[in-house]
Amino acid sequence: MPAKPCSLLIVQPRFNCYFKPYFPINFSSFRHFSPRPTLNASLFSANPRPHSSLPSTGSSQIDPGSSRGGRTGALTPPPFADEVQKIDANPPKGTRDFPPEDMRLRSWLFHNFREVSRLFGFEEVDFPVLESEALFIRKAGEEIRDQLYCFEDRGNRRVALRPELTPSLARLVIQKGKSAPLPLKWFAIGQCWRYERMTRGRRREHYQWNMDIIGVPEVTAEAELISSTISFFKRIGVTASDVGFKVSSRKVLQEVLMSYSVPEDSFGRVCVIIDKIGKIPVEEIKKDLKHAGMSEVAVEDLLQVLSIKSLEKLEEILGDSGEAISDLRQLFSLAEKFGYSEWIQFDASVVRGLAYYTGIVFEGFDREGKLRAICGGGRYDKLLSTFGGDDLPACGFGFGDAVIVELLKEKGLLPKLDHQVENIVCALDSDLQGAAAAVATKLREKGQSVDLVLEGKPLKWVFKRAARINAQRLILVGLDEWQKGMVSVKILSSGEQYEVKLVELE
Amino acid sequence: MPAKPCSLLIVQPRFNCYFKPYFPINFSSFRHFSPRPTLNASLFSANPRPHSSLPSTGSSQIDPGSSRGGRTGALTPPPFADEVQKIDANPPKGTRDFPPEDMRLRSWLFHNFREVSRLFGFEEVDFPVLESEALFIRKAGEEIRDQLYCFEDRGNRRVALRPELTPSLARLVIQKGKSAPLPLKWFAIGQCWRYERMTRGRRREHYQWNMDIIGVPEVTAEAELISSTISFFKRIGVTASDVGFKVSSRKVLQEVLMSYSVPEDSFGRVCVIIDKIGKIPVEEIKKDLKHAGMSEVAVEDLLQVLSIKSLEKLEEILGDSGEAISDLRQLFSLAEKFGYSEWIQFDASVVRGLAYYTGIVFEGFDREGKLRAICGGGRYDKLLSTFGGDDLPACGFGFGDAVIVELLKEKGLLPKLDHQVENIVCALDSDLQGAAAAVATKLREKGQSVDLVLEGKPLKWVFKRAARINAQRLILVGLDEWQKGMVSVKILSSGEQYEVKLVELE
Repeated sequence: MPAKPCSLLIVQPRFNCYFKPYFPINFSSFRHFSPRPTLNASLFSANPRPHSSLPSTGSSQIDPGSSRGGRTGALTPPPFADEVQKIDANPPKGTRDFPPEDMRLRSWLFHNFREVSRLFGFEEVDFPVLESEALFIRKAGEEIRDQLYCFEDRGNRRVALRPELTPSLARLVIQKGKSAPLPLKWFAIGQCWRYERMTRGRRREHYQWNMDIIGVPEVTAEAELISSTISFFKRIGVTASDVGFKVSSRKVLQEVLMSYSVPEDSFGRVCVIIDKIGKIPVEEIKKDLKHAGMSEVAVEDLLQVLSIKSLEKLEEILGDSGEAISDLRQLFSLAEKFGYSEWIQFDASVVRGLAYYTGIVFEGFDREGKLRAICGGGRYDKLLSTFGGDDLPACGFGFGDAVIVELLKEKGLLPKLDHQVENIVCALDSDLQGAAAAVATKLREKGQSVDLVLEGKPLKWVFKRAARINAQRLILVGLDEWQKGMVSVKILSSGEQYEVKLVELE
Repeated sequence: MPAKPCSLLIVQPRFNCYFKPYFPINFSSFRHFSPRPTLNASLFSANPRPHSSLPSTGSSQIDPGSSRGGRTGALTPPPFADEVQKIDANPPKGTRDFPPEDMRLRSWLFHNFREVSRLFGFEEVDFPVLESEALFIRKAGEEIRDQLYCFEDRGNRRVALRPELTPSLARLVIQKGKSAPLPLKWFAIGQCWRYERMTRGRRREHYQWNMDIIGVPEVTAEAELISSTISFFKRIGVTASDVGFKVSSRKVLQEVLMSYSVPEDSFGRVCVIIDKIGKIPVEEIKKDLKHAGMSEVAVEDLLQVLSIKSLEKLEEILGDSGEAISDLRQLFSLAEKFGYSEWIQFDASVVRGLAYYTGIVFEGFDREGKLRAICGGGRYDKLLSTFGGDDLPACGFGFGDAVIVELLKEKGLLPKLDHQVENIVCALDSDLQGAAAAVATKLREKGQSVDLVLEGKPLKWVFKRAARINAQRLILVGLDEWQKGMVSVKILSSGEQYEVKLVELE
């Protein structure tokens, strides 16, 4: 609670503007002076003159109009060369600024991303936000390709702002080669860009938290990753009645497709088409699937399989001996041991929109069905070889910063994050500004945060600021106390106030 | 210290690969099956058949060759559609990946940037890395303009990867308008891009820490900013004998230029030229200054003034009544009170390379003179009006992540930052993988970091990994102990080991 701006022990006269007044030179008058070459000869002589030879800036040149100053900083020299150009004060379309209040939320989110990653023993990595375009060009017709934020740079290289982190991670894994002992457990938090049409209130950039495990072929890896996202949800107050995970395996599709002799090399493309179910009309889906080489019968059968929501039912169709079933069974069994069974459910319709997944896929969704997927991931054991590297078993997830914030808003779970400062330190006299600086330095050396009042302001203003920045203590440096080596302290929550020796100030 | 991989109480047989073997289906054989439309009719009938109608994946199809698996993940399905394209495993020229070891250093640096900013009561902000190009185009001939990483986006907008943070900050201040009570004390840590020729081992991106104070016309603001960078240096072990600050004021130049009737609108351009002293031949500097409208005499005089290293000497030239002198005097007086006099020195040659500075300018340098400027900043009271906003007094600095790391290397001050995990948890039997997961979950819920061994691996491997990730404890989940509700714990630094009930595991 901010203290009331009253009842201070120290009530001293207060200068609203206690600094030495600036010398208000009217620079424009200088322009009428002619250069004075005579001064140059003597300026840098062996015995320089004790006083300036440059034009005097004495009182005769005072222009009272120029000393008003204030918010516009009119006390400083006139503007430099540049012409004024009216710029748009908004960030580019589809992008965000992060003023302090938004940044606090982002930092809180990232802190929780990092903390969960730490609890799971993952190491942080990062990659350039600008990558070679080739890294993101896949031939499966993904939406992500059409939305690539790509350019040609000054060296005529095709570059792109990354739309996702996984290809960069794969690149780094290839680069590290055998020098990195497996498994790698890496996480990253990075900004990703998609040049989307701005129709659905979507933005063109978002931050994404990724966790990836490289080198573990077993489903334990996927189970661990899902566990970490659930840990995250729990930390921020989201429960299993708010959010669930739909889990399936690309191997389900693969087994179906193969039974209908659909060519292997259509697999990525078919997955990308299937991911659009629910987003575009089913007739278009069917048409696209036929274009991808599937017979009408195969398409119908595939759509039927995709509607399955029970592992038992799936097993009736696929038999119990395939990898799809055994992976999924193992995952659900592990979920029980990890303690998150209530969070996950089998849903054959989940395939994810990226071409490179090969095994288990999962996505987190809000149970009210209002929002897009909150997070998603899966196994991508064959990505490295598409870049010319040796394949390694790999899985990971991406978790954006946008939908989760919408969910937290919906559920009333957004944290209250105020700016907070431990101390506000203020000199009561212009001559004591240095003393106040010394007090601030001393407190900061002890690890205490200090907002130092840098201007001559009335006490009322100081109290208002103290309240706004949620300062815990107001420390006033007044002449009488300072001469005794003391300062005046006011605890702003209780109103308690006392004087204390500077050496005893903690 | 890593424990030796021996003397465990529990010595149980260990399965190198204890998971249920994958069912080694030879998928390629599927392709020879013809579609079986007959199964479709019954597949989704009201009474689905209890067993699969899809082609059996029984033992007759086992291809022993496909069960080898291992690092390359050969147990997973064949690759999807995409053709292999050999990509460059390196990040784009002039950019960096951050593998874990480099990321730890970056995180340590950023943590210290943030901690100092917090101690000074600053709030964090951020802006898009991609901004409108217009934000960075100034007419003063700055190097930064020639190096702009600019593009045309899909909507034919001219955009640029930001080369610095200040224009974005100014944009946000204009956007916030009067809703933000002054002074604003903001900091940001962001990646900046410059398309430099790659000749001097320079990179095209770096991260920059900025602190800015908006709304304070007094020199106390500059004094506070210099104080914060010095706090940073001290935190990371850098002393006043390693690093100093050269301080001057653009008003020095302005007073000289005006005395020679150099047009006001040449000011930014002249500053940019002067900043190149020491980087290009002095004759070129002189030529450029003449092009900017200065007489030969004025140029010679200016260069003489720039060589001044003492405030007293400067005062002899400029007189004692101008703003340049009074600002600088005040700054040096405050430096004494802040306690950092030994760090700073007057040096008229410091002007900084950005056109928009109007007052005090400063830069941090290594006293051995081996490196480029470590950080730099100053007052820019007229930047907002160049964007069409109302001017506000403002000052700030930028502090890159590159030169400081070079300095720390030079001085042997780079911190030792190892990956550290509190626990490594490992099941001793395939059936106990779920139990190990439960142990990991329990520890993580208590805030302990856990590297969970996700694969069947020999104990020797587990110890090696434990040493590599600097695990403090190894927790083994073996059958006998687990049946008693216990696990085996080994403290890896001392070799001490004991059994403990899971409920008592802290």
